Amino acid sequence: MPTMKPISYEAASREVKAVFDDIKTSRNVPDVNNFWKVLANEPRMLKQTWESLKAIMGPGALDPLTKELVYVAVSVTNNCEYCMASHTAAARAKGATDAQINELFAVIALANMTNRLANAYQPEVDPQFKPKS
Amino acid sequence: MPTMKPISYEAASREVKAVFDDIKTSRNVPDVNNFWKVLANEPRMLKQTWESLKAIMGPGALDPLTKELVYVAVSVTNNCEYCMASHTAAARAKGATDAQINELFAVIALANMTNRLANAYQPEVDPQFKPKS
Amino acid sequence: MPTMKPISYEAASREVKAVFDDIKTSRNVPDVNNFWKVLANEPRMLKQTWESLKAIMGPGALDPLTKELVYVAVSVTNNCEYCMASHTAAARAKGATDAQINELFAVIALANMTNRLANAYQPEVDPQFKPKS
Amino acid sequence: MPTMKPISYEAASREVKAVFDDIKTSRNVPDVNNFWKVLANEPRMLKQTWESLKAIMGPGALDPLTKELVYVAVSVTNNCEYCMASHTAAARAKGATDAQINELFAVIALANMTNRLANAYQPEVDPQFKPKS
Amino acid sequence: MPTMKPISYEAASREVKAVFDDIKTSRNVPDVNNFWKVLANEPRMLKQTWESLKAIMGPGALDPLTKELVYVAVSVTNNCEYCMASHTAAARAKGATDAQINELFAVIALANMTNRLANAYQPEVDPQFKPKS
Amino acid sequence: MPTMKPISYEAASREVKAVFDDIKTSRNVPDVNNFWKVLANEPRMLKQTWESLKAIMGPGALDPLTKELVYVAVSVTNNCEYCMASHTAAARAKGATDAQINELFAVIALANMTNRLANAYQPEVDPQFKPKS
Repeated sequence: MPTMKPISYEAASREVKAVFDDIKTSRNVPDVNNFWKVLANEPRMLKQTWESLKAIMGPGALDPLTKELVYVAVSVTNNCEYCMASHTAAARAKGATDAQINELFAVIALANMTNRLANAYQPEVDPQFKPKS
Repeated sequence: MPTMKPISYEAASREVKAVFDDIKTSRNVPDVNNFWKVLANEPRMLKQTWESLKAIMGPGALDPLTKELVYVAVSVTNNCEYCMASHTAAARAKGATDAQINELFAVIALANMTNRLANAYQPEVDPQFKPKS
Repeated sequence: MPTMKPISYEAASREVKAVFDDIKTSRNVPDVNNFWKVLANEPRMLKQTWESLKAIMGPGALDPLTKELVYVAVSVTNNCEYCMASHTAAARAKGATDAQINELFAVIALANMTNRLANAYQPEVDPQFKPKS
Repeated sequence: MPTMKPISYEAASREVKAVFDDIKTSRNVPDVNNFWKVLANEPRMLKQTWESLKAIMGPGALDPLTKELVYVAVSVTNNCEYCMASHTAAARAKGATDAQINELFAVIALANMTNRLANAYQPEVDPQFKPKS
Repeated sequence: MPTMKPISYEAASREVKAVFDDIKTSRNVPDVNNFWKVLANEPRMLKQTWESLKAIMGPGALDPLTKELVYVAVSVTNNCEYCMASHTAAARAKGATDAQINELFAVIALANMTNRLANAYQPEVDPQFKPKS
Repeated sequence: MPTMKPISYEAASREVKAVFDDIKTSRNVPDVNNFWKVLANEPRMLKQTWESLKAIMGPGALDPLTKELVYVAVSVTNNCEYCMASHTAAARAKGATDAQINELFAVIALANMTNRLANAYQPEVDPQFKPKS
C-alpha cells in the first residue's frame, strides 16, 4: 500500500494538473502512471523530477533505449521493484528484446561482482585509466 | 595499497599465465591491468571471472559500448573507484564521447533519485508494467 | 513470513521479559511491536539494540522528531520496508505532518542523486569543507 | 582527480554562468564549490540539480538545518566522501554543534543496524504502522 | 511474479539441460530450484554462474557452512529476499543451528552499524592494519 | 582526515577511559585503535558499540574467526575501507590464511552477483526455502 494516497488527475490541483498534462502530452499516454500520482503529494518535487527526466531522458548524446537500460541497471542494483518493472517495460516499448534484457541482467550482475572484487583487493588504478589533467 | 600483492606475468603460475595470455590475446593488450594481477591471488576466481566477462561482454544482443555504459552505471551507484576508472576508460576506447559520459552520469543520478522516491512512496506497480504470465 | 517465530510476552524468558517490560514502560505502550518479538530470538542482541536506542533516540542534542526523520532517511535509502513503516509512524506520533514527510522524501531522493553525481565526477573536497585539524 | 575538468566561472558558457550566478546570489558566496564546477560539464543536469535543490532545501515544511542533517545521513549511509564533507560543513554553517553531529552519526549507525535486523528477521508490519487507506 | 518465465527441465534446450543435470548431480537433488529456472533465460550466464559457484562454494580453504553464512551476510546487507531464504536454508542443511543463525544476524547488523560509524568519522587506518608491502 | 579529532587515552574523560580500559583488558592490547578514539567523541555510542561487540563477537554459537569473516563480507559489500582493513587484520590474528581470505573474497563477490540476478529475475521463493510456521 502506498505511503501517501495517489492523487488522480481529477483530484489534482492546477499546479499538479499542469505537470500531469505535460507528461501525458510528451509521452502520448492517456494517464500518468502511479509513480507520478503518489509523487503529486509533493508538487515541487513532482515538477522538478519531471523536468529533470524530460531534459535528460529524451534524445541526446545517448539514444533513449540505452538510457532506459542504464535506468534498469541502477534499479536492479538498488533492488527497487517498482523501478525495475516500469523501466523494463519502457525499455521494451523502445524496442528492447528478451535477449537484450537477459544480457543486460548478466552485465549488471557481473558488474556487482567485480565491484566487490575491486573493493576487496583494492588494486591501484592503472595509469592508463586516469583522466588526463 | 592493495590487500594482496599483485602477481606479475613473470611470477605467475602456469594456470594464472594461461588466463593472462587469454586476456592479452582477446583484448590485444601488452599486459593485463592491475585488477587481474591482484585477482590472480585466487586463481579459480580469476579464471571464472575472466570466462564470465568474455562470455558476456563481447558481441551479443547488446553492443559492447552499451555494456560498458551499464558497467559504469553500476560502478557509480556502488561507488567503486577502480571500476569507474577502468570502465569509463573502456567506454571511451569503444567510442564514448564526453557528451555521452556526461549524459550517462545524469541518467545514473536520476535513477538513484527516483529509486528512492519509489521506495518512499511505494506506488503500486501499474498493470501495464507487469510481465505477461 | 518472519524468518524466526516472533516471541510473545507470555512465551518469553525472564531475560527477554525484562527488556520487553522496559520498552513498554519507556514508550508507554501496551505491547512491544513485531520487530522486538522476532529479535527476541537473540536475547543478547535484543538487549543491546534496545539499550542503544534508549541511549540515543531519547532527548539529547537533537530533538526526537529530527532523529526519527533521520531514521526514515536511512531506511528509505536502504529500502527497508518494515523500518520505513515503523519510523514514519513514529515520526507522525512525534508531530510530523504530511507536508514534512513529503519534503523529507524529496530531500532523501535529492541526496541519493547528488551522492552519485559526486561519485561520478569526483570533485576535490573544497578547502573550506575540510575539518580543522 | 576529478573525472571531468572543473569549469571555472571565467571559462563557463553563458548558460552555465547563469546557474553559477544564481547559486552565488542565493547562497551569498563569492564562488561556487567544486561540485558545481564539475557538474557544469553537463549543463542541463547542472541546471536541473540546482533548481531542485533551490526548490527543496530552502525554507519549507522542515527547517533548513534538519534537511542538512538528513542529507548527511544519506551521504554517510552511501559513503560519499565529498557529500559528507560538504553537507556536514553546511550543517555547521546552519548552527549544528559538535554534540548534534556526533548524535546524528549515532542515529545513522543505529538505523543501518536495525535495517539489517529487519531485513534478516522480516517481521510483519504491525497494523498500527500501516498508512490509512 | 518473475520477470522472465521459469524454464522447466522438460522445456529446456540441450545446453540448459546439461547445466541442470550437473546441478542435480552435484547437489544430489531431484530438480533445480527456481533461481536456475529463471536464469536459464540467459544460458551463457546460467553456465558461468553455476561453474563459478561449483568452483568456489564446494570444499576449499573455508568449510562449506562458513561460506553459506557469508552468503547470508551479503544477502541480508543487500536485502535480497530470495537469496536470504535460499542460503539460510542451505546453511541449515549444512548444519547451522538456530542459535548460529541468530548470532549471524547480530554480527551482520553490527557490521552494518560500525561500517557507518567508520564512514562518518573516517578514522585513519592504524599502521598495524595495513597489508605488508 | 578524521571528521572529529581522535581522543587519546590521556585526554579522555573518566567515562571514556572506562570503556578504553575495558577494550584494552578484553583484547589484551596496549592501546585502543583509531576507530574507538574517534568514536569517543560520542561517549554514549562508544559505550553501546563496545558493549554490543563484546556481547556478540566473543565465544558463542559461532567461532570468533567465522564472525570476523562475516564482518569482512559486510564491509567489502559496503566498501568500508577502514572496516575491511581492521577486520581482515583481526581475521588473520585469529588464524585466517591467505587462501581463506582469497576464497572469502570470491564468495562475497559471487553473492553480490547472484543477489542482483535474483533481484532482476525475481524467482518465486521455492517452498522448501520457506521457514516453517
